[in-house]
Amino acid sequence: MNGSKLEYIKLLLLDVDGVLTSGHIIYSGADIETKMFNVKDGLGIRLLQSAGIDVGIITGRTSKALLIRCGDLGITMIYDGIKSKGDIFDTILSATHLQAHEVAFVGDDLPDISLMKKVGISIAVGDAHDAVKKNADITTRRNGGEGAVREVCEMILDAKNLLEKIIENCI
Amino acid sequence: MNGSKLEYIKLLLLDVDGVLTSGHIIYSGADIETKMFNVKDGLGIRLLQSAGIDVGIITGRTSKALLIRCGDLGITMIYDGIKSKGDIFDTILSATHLQAHEVAFVGDDLPDISLMKKVGISIAVGDAHDAVKKNADITTRRNGGEGAVREVCEMILDAKNLLEKIIENCI
Amino acid sequence: MNGSKLEYIKLLLLDVDGVLTSGHIIYSGADIETKMFNVKDGLGIRLLQSAGIDVGIITGRTSKALLIRCGDLGITMIYDGIKSKGDIFDTILSATHLQAHEVAFVGDDLPDISLMKKVGISIAVGDAHDAVKKNADITTRRNGGEGAVREVCEMILDAKNLLEKIIENCI
Amino acid sequence: MNGSKLEYIKLLLLDVDGVLTSGHIIYSGADIETKMFNVKDGLGIRLLQSAGIDVGIITGRTSKALLIRCGDLGITMIYDGIKSKGDIFDTILSATHLQAHEVAFVGDDLPDISLMKKVGISIAVGDAHDAVKKNADITTRRNGGEGAVREVCEMILDAKNLLEKIIENCI
Repeated sequence: MNGSKLEYIKLLLLDVDGVLTSGHIIYSGADIETKMFNVKDGLGIRLLQSAGIDVGIITGRTSKALLIRCGDLGITMIYDGIKSKGDIFDTILSATHLQAHEVAFVGDDLPDISLMKKVGISIAVGDAHDAVKKNADITTRRNGGEGAVREVCEMILDAKNLLEKIIENCI
Repeated sequence: MNGSKLEYIKLLLLDVDGVLTSGHIIYSGADIETKMFNVKDGLGIRLLQSAGIDVGIITGRTSKALLIRCGDLGITMIYDGIKSKGDIFDTILSATHLQAHEVAFVGDDLPDISLMKKVGISIAVGDAHDAVKKNADITTRRNGGEGAVREVCEMILDAKNLLEKIIENCI
Repeated sequence: MNGSKLEYIKLLLLDVDGVLTSGHIIYSGADIETKMFNVKDGLGIRLLQSAGIDVGIITGRTSKALLIRCGDLGITMIYDGIKSKGDIFDTILSATHLQAHEVAFVGDDLPDISLMKKVGISIAVGDAHDAVKKNADITTRRNGGEGAVREVCEMILDAKNLLEKIIENCI
Repeated sequence: MNGSKLEYIKLLLLDVDGVLTSGHIIYSGADIETKMFNVKDGLGIRLLQSAGIDVGIITGRTSKALLIRCGDLGITMIYDGIKSKGDIFDTILSATHLQAHEVAFVGDDLPDISLMKKVGISIAVGDAHDAVKKNADITTRRNGGEGAVREVCEMILDAKNLLEKIIENCI
């Protein structure tokens, strides 16, 4: 059932801390925030984009490290410093001319729930807060920062019957 | 029993290394200490503060990284460079006009025990030293830096019957 | 069978992210990429080199951190920023005057498969993508960045009956 | 038996990478090496020193990060950039006026074995190379960088009947 819903996804929205990272907030004394992303997540995002599925970021925090990583991956839809993630969703739908059922969102903690209730498919990472898992259509096997986003990217590609072809092309 | 004692907590004191972090002491050659905090702990602290429970820091070390993280979280009660944690407790009670049973403290190693013996509720993180666990009222399921502080924050909110409402407001 | 094939290896090629590291892509706000290598992998590489087996790098990314680590280890064959790893293999064989069956390659993700199909021995790290493991002659017990490369170095030395002597010389 | 031998230890020598750290070699593009030490190891070292047992470092590498950490902990005996750890041992015995049976050493990899064969008590961390474990009198339960050194410090203090008193003084 979720598989069939995944087939309609045209936009994957991602929280950052705890989803694209393991949730470590890393500060040096030089007031520079460091973030640890995951190389396998990065490839998953690029495979999605190549298949015509857009990827965007929605996060309550802001950091230059995130912008650098988004530059790597060609992600231009970046909503950072967002207080209420649910409230920004209508803006996103207008900007993208998409319908709710064409959007998936991956979250890990309480501020993600308001948006999870609005998107077509809501996904919790393996180590998400219990209340997030309860409100998610899907929970990934892997934890945030440990390949959860890659898993989601492959789920979407698989639902669209694109994954097998991508892997065959690598061989 | 501990649940009922948690209901009276008005101030949560936190050790830093091994409690708000996994205990990694990270140095670069540039003499700048880096610390890895946890995003889920951060949200727990802000939820506590929103519910009127204050959060303070007591640590034997000092670092700019800690001050930056405290700035993020609106923590202004910071006792750093403290040689004897137990000795500072009377100062804290005077400054806050609180009684011992209204204060909880989370620690992980031997220098934390003197303060744990004085506060209303003493809490050890999951990977605390055995002697700390033996002297604690509560030991968390999660390890330091891996969500132990979030677990404590939710315990306190739950004892005050506030947690369920907070989660419902997210949905 | 693989053991006998390992005996012929004269060049070990290594992917970087997810093989020499755990796959963390670490950015600070200063736009400097940090990489976490493994000290035990480093010793394995130096033992191989001392035994006359060359070690080279093939990666799709580029970073100064990698070049510094290669400087440590005396690795001068560095193919970075490589879009198609399989396509570079003929260049490597020409430059080294080696035959395919004298080359091993360690990878972890889809872009590694095209080269894995061409080398004499293809090796997947323990936490490689399933499609990589399926296309590998050998999968290591350890994960990338956690000693997988050391394990490969010792496999090769052992197949050449050199490992026991190296260890005896340490005693 | 090992317990009784531990009673005579007056100097604890420590390898760095893989013993005081998890073995991560961390480079940023700015050519600055970062090291991740462990706060609980640090306290163990200070407890040993307070009990009159000296602590020294023997490592094949050199880094400013190590020197900063040694500064924290009051460690002044630092042999870094050592090619052959076994060869330096006579120098250490002369400088300290100690006998071999009064010295313990903690190592994790092949270059540590030559020194392990010479000291009174040789100790391998939990994730040491198998050849190191085979040549060690004791293997710790914890891994390098994850509290192995703290475990050794407490073993020595316990063999000298000092540990219980130290813990009681904290309470």
